[in-house]
This record gives sequence, C-alpha cells and structure tokens, in this order.
Amino acid sequence: MSFRFQLEARDGKARAARFCTPHGEVETPVFMPVGTVATVKGMPQDTLEELGVQILLNNTYHLYLRPGVEMIRRLGGVQKFMAWDRPILTDSGGFQVFSLSDLRKVNEEGVQFRSHLDGSSHFFSPESAIAAQIGLGADIIMAFDECTEHPAEYARTKSSMEMTLRWAQRSRKYFEEHKQEVPWFVERGEQTQTLFGIVQGGMFVDLRRESAQRTVEMDFPGYAIGGLSVGEPRSMTYEMVDAAIRFLPEDKPRYLMGVGTPEEIVQYAAQGVDMMDCVLPTRAARHGLLFTSEGRITIKNARYAADETPLDPNCGCKVCARYSRAYLRHLYASNELLAQVLNTIHNLAHYLTTMRGVRQAIARGQFAHLLAQVSPPPATLLTAGHQQRRL
Amino acid sequence: MSFRFQLEARDGKARAARFCTPHGEVETPVFMPVGTVATVKGMPQDTLEELGVQILLNNTYHLYLRPGVEMIRRLGGVQKFMAWDRPILTDSGGFQVFSLSDLRKVNEEGVQFRSHLDGSSHFFSPESAIAAQIGLGADIIMAFDECTEHPAEYARTKSSMEMTLRWAQRSRKYFEEHKQEVPWFVERGEQTQTLFGIVQGGMFVDLRRESAQRTVEMDFPGYAIGGLSVGEPRSMTYEMVDAAIRFLPEDKPRYLMGVGTPEEIVQYAAQGVDMMDCVLPTRAARHGLLFTSEGRITIKNARYAADETPLDPNCGCKVCARYSRAYLRHLYASNELLAQVLNTIHNLAHYLTTMRGVRQAIARGQFAHLLAQVSPPPATLLTAGHQQRRL
Repeated sequence: MSFRFQLEARDGKARAARFCTPHGEVETPVFMPVGTVATVKGMPQDTLEELGVQILLNNTYHLYLRPGVEMIRRLGGVQKFMAWDRPILTDSGGFQVFSLSDLRKVNEEGVQFRSHLDGSSHFFSPESAIAAQIGLGADIIMAFDECTEHPAEYARTKSSMEMTLRWAQRSRKYFEEHKQEVPWFVERGEQTQTLFGIVQGGMFVDLRRESAQRTVEMDFPGYAIGGLSVGEPRSMTYEMVDAAIRFLPEDKPRYLMGVGTPEEIVQYAAQGVDMMDCVLPTRAARHGLLFTSEGRITIKNARYAADETPLDPNCGCKVCARYSRAYLRHLYASNELLAQVLNTIHNLAHYLTTMRGVRQAIARGQFAHLLAQVSPPPATLLTAGHQQRRL
Repeated sequence: MSFRFQLEARDGKARAARFCTPHGEVETPVFMPVGTVATVKGMPQDTLEELGVQILLNNTYHLYLRPGVEMIRRLGGVQKFMAWDRPILTDSGGFQVFSLSDLRKVNEEGVQFRSHLDGSSHFFSPESAIAAQIGLGADIIMAFDECTEHPAEYARTKSSMEMTLRWAQRSRKYFEEHKQEVPWFVERGEQTQTLFGIVQGGMFVDLRRESAQRTVEMDFPGYAIGGLSVGEPRSMTYEMVDAAIRFLPEDKPRYLMGVGTPEEIVQYAAQGVDMMDCVLPTRAARHGLLFTSEGRITIKNARYAADETPLDPNCGCKVCARYSRAYLRHLYASNELLAQVLNTIHNLAHYLTTMRGVRQAIARGQFAHLLAQVSPPPATLLTAGHQQRRL
C-alpha cells in the first residue's frame, strides 16, 4: 500500500488534510511531540493518547546509540517497543550528529562522529542512516541530510545543499532496495515506510528554491524543510519557508522540522505547513515555563505561591481542571518529579489544542480570524526553535 | 462528628474493618502510600485514584518547612492544596526531626533542630507539632513522640518512653483546646481531626506493654506503634508488635508506622495491624527495584534487555498490561523520567493489590491460607523498614 495524503480544505495558503500510515491516520496540520529515546519524557503512553497525540517523533541518533537498532528490530519495531500503536516519525539522525556528537568529520561518503554517551566512534552514511530507520520501523522516515550551520557563506551553503541532494538520491535508492526489511512488513499486510525528502539551502532564497525544485524532481511522497530555526531572526525563517514552500507540490505533505513557539506554529500553518515538531513544550515544561492562553508563566515565581486559580482558566486539560498554581509552584520549588509530569501534560495540551483549533478554523474558512488573534512571539523567544533542542 | 471504626470480620488475630473521616471512608487493613511534601513522587492524583489509594501519608516536618503551615492553612488544608479529596494522615514530625535534621537538642519541653533544607533553626514541642498538624488539616494526626534510637539501653528507653507519654498528654490537651481551628471545620459540618496516640518502648517487651497500657488509659480513638523497623532483626519487630498489640483495644484501629516489604505487610496484618505506611514501594521503584508476584526484579539487569514479557504476568496494573520488561529496562538504563513514573505505578499496585487480597481473605475466613503462601522476606531486606526512609 502506498502513503495517501488527502487535502480536505484550504484557507489562504493554509491547508487541512489527512494522511494514512501503517499505524493509523493523522489529521493535519499536526504537532508532533518529541519522544527522543522512545519516550516523551515523563509521559505514560495512555496520557499521550488522552491528550490526542496523533504521531510522535523519535530521534534516530539516540535510538541507534541506545538501545540500538538491532534490539528494536528484534522487538518488532519502535511502535511495539514503546507500546505505542499510532504513527511514529524518525528524523534522519543528521541534525543530532551535527549538534550533539563530538569530533564529527563530514565527507561525501557520510559523517564520522563520536557518541555523546561514551565517546565511541560511529559512521552515518545515507545508506546506514536509512538502514537504521528501516530497522527502527517508524512510519515516516527522513532522507539523510546535512544541516548547514548558521551563519554560512553562499558558496558553502550551496555546496552543502548539493551534497544533501546527492545524499537524498542515495537515501532513496537504499530505501527502495531495502524497504521490505521493515520489522512489521508482513504483520502489516506488506505495507512499508514512507520516505520524505528534506529541503536545505540555508538563508538564501534562491538556494531554498533550487533545493525545493530539485528535491521535488526526485518525487518523494512528502517534503521536509530543514536547517531553519537555527539562530536566524524569525522573519528570516518565515521568508525561507515561503521561498521553499511555493515550489512544493500541493498534493504532498510539508513538514517544517524543529519548530516552534505556540504563536509560530500558527504562523507556519498559515504558510501552508502541515507537520511540525519541537522539544519546546516538553523541555520548557521541565524548566517551569508554561504556555497559556494568557501568555507565558514562569511557575517558580513567588507571586504564584498562594494563587488558587488554575494555570490557564481557558484550558481544558486535566492539570488545569484539578490543580492550583500554588500547588504547581510548590511542586516546582520543591524539585518534585510531579512538577515535570504535570507541567508537560499542560504544555502538550496547549500545543495540541492550538493545532486542533487551527485545523478547525481552516475547515470552516475562519483561519484569518484566528491568525489575527495570535500575538507576535516575545523578543526573548524570537531566536528559539532548533536552538531549543539544546536548552 | 466523632471518628468511627467498625470491625467487620476477624480471622485469627487479623481484622477487616472500616473507618470514617471527614474526607471519606477507609477500608482496612490499608496500605498508605507516602506523599512526603504533598505528592507521591511522580504520581498525578488521578493515577492514585485509579490505583485505589484510599488514604495518603504526608510528612509534617517537610510541609512545615516548605511551603509552610500558614500557606497550606490559607489554601484550605492539605487535601485542597494537593487536590486530593480523600483522607490524609500526617505523622507528628518526630521521626523526621530525629532522622533528617541536624544538631537536634531534645529536652522535656521539645526538640530544637535545624532544617535539612537551609540550616535554619526551629523548635517542635508537643503543642507546636499539634498546631502544625491542625494547620495542615490532615484527617488523622499523630501525638508528638520521641522515636527512641536503636540500640538503646533499658533505662534510656524507659525514660524516653516516659517522656513520650507526657508528650502524648500535652499533645492531647493542645488538640482538645484547638481542634476547631482546622481549616475545613466549618466547610465539613464542624467535623474535626482524629488524634492517634503512639506506643514506644524500644526493644523491650515490658516497656512495650507498659507504653501500650498507659497510652490506652488516655483513651485515644486510635493507636500507632512507633519506633520499630529501625534496624532490629525482623523477628524482634514481630515480637515487639505482639507485645504492644495485645494491650490495644479491639475496637480501635492500630497503625504500625513505617513498614514494610510486601511479605511483611501481610505478616503485620496477621498480627492484627490495620494501617501501615512505607516509602519502600515508591523509593525502591525510583531505584529500579520492582516487586512482583514472582519475586523482586532489578530492572537495570541486562537479562531484561530483550525480554518481551510484562514485569509481572499476574499483575493487572496498567504498566503490566501495556509495557515489556525490555522497554522498562531501556527507560531505566537511559535514566528517563518515565522509568520512575511507571515503576512507581507498578510497585504501588503490587502493595495495594496485596492489601486488598489480605482484606478479602480475612472477610472470607481464608487468611491462614494466604499467609502460608507468603514466602519469608529475603535476608538482604530483613533490616529494611524505617531504614528504608533513608535509602
């Protein structure tokens, strides 16, 4: 069976759609929580289901190092391993190799790197990164790319983009030859994974266009936009998304990697992005930064010590339905595990509710109205995004 | 309204009963999970409800230091503070003052101690410890006692026991004069808290008897047995429990403080104990030690890395229903938050299920059969108990 993407509604450039995977359907625009090592930190899987999480992101780099691809393959793939019977997407490992590992050496063949866990030496090529992703068995996997550093000169950015294009070809070739090796191939009626291409091109409009056009020529079933939210001003991110997305086909999903704040994800949906992931809601939660309909709350602040009101009076999550700010402040101030658990539930609820609202507004042709209500993100968070992966 | 304790069934010395508090009913024998600072570490309150937790223990010493008694009083009491609308019991603070604080000085008046958080100086007398417990507003509170150190000579143990008896009188007097100051007095129809006395007497049979008899003369609505599981051999614990319990009235609840392993709590129920609390299930869980119907599992062990079976095939908890040992081992080895959350759910389920089984067996007159199945605890855990509070 092939991957199916069905457009359901349009409102401006924004789209509401759905796609099918071997582990179920996903309604877009969708926010994908990050479950780095096959767990969204502190969240039991049934809590994620209650929150309405449709699809999770796992990091290939982390799972490759621990517990290892062969272990997860042997246990039936990552869905079975983590007891999550809904879709999963893995990234290519490229971004983590560039941001987390030590002593990396890049050449045409691939990347030599050292594990951030124990310093051991490893090599990722397009072929081995795809082999790892086939072994892990996520529903959607990513071509191996080079995430160009920021800032970078034009010539350097162009040559990096060219290599990513060659690596996309190699990724695709390896995938086509090996896709039946996914652990659940037989069990899921001979369905296979779906491989997305990744657009690079740094902060140059013409390179973003060229990368988009040449990646589309390879005819992937979906396209990611990578290498953004790496420290550039947010206005430049929007410009680069626009430069790429106008050359991506209407009938394929577009995935903007590693973004963003609650305000930004609405903006990206307005640009026609269908899928997003970010560690911000979960990581910020563990650091006591909470997103609400009335703005950001730093829960450790003493002003909340005797505050009997819920975190967000307009939020329907189970944290806001039950607990006071005073209690959440006490848990955080006391460095209690439950602070991290409850804060994460709320922040995920805020993101998922935001995205469901976006989808609903698009379906009703009222998205312009919703967009107008979104206040611009505060200056302190303007350079967040991929950076947030390293908070 | 006064505290009611109703015996429902007897089987040997074991009893099944129930008691009423202003925040609901409790069926005994009951195991009370420890929620030190108004949270059972990592457990959302709805998870505790799903597990069938009937009553929680909070530590007066910890809540007194943070967020402080006045804060919790102002927020309506600890049940409202932590959004837990079921019964809560607070200890007297005595045990923590002796085990956690620095530079304590004990005299007839009370105990001077330094906070383990910031070194600040504080004083607990029977009066101030009861005032703190009235302010916190737990349903059941404890007389202020001295937990005699182990080992201790006879004369020292006797004089410590005598002081605990005088402190019990002072606790009781203060409580009677101030019990209407509990934060929910009006809201709960002028109901008040219930004050239990505590039997001490170290490791001496005659002192345990004397302490029990003289505490019972003061006519408390319930009696705790304190100062056990402090490093003595388990056979001695059983002997001391027996020495005290035979002098406690049949028509009042008996609470054995700070015990025990899953096997031991069955043994104590057989001795006629109605209530128990221990940090062992929750603390051991966070350290990867899991209790199952087939024995103990140290989940970090490499032998579980590829084990697709549930933690305990005979357990009905949501962890055993969904996750494999391989996944739980991966979470623990990766130092993931979710390891602590899932392990805690399972261990609590094991304790609560064990205690429900005990109650059911007593009600059916089949407790002797159940007791015969309980294997003796392994030697390595024989001196656990109160010690476990400091794991």
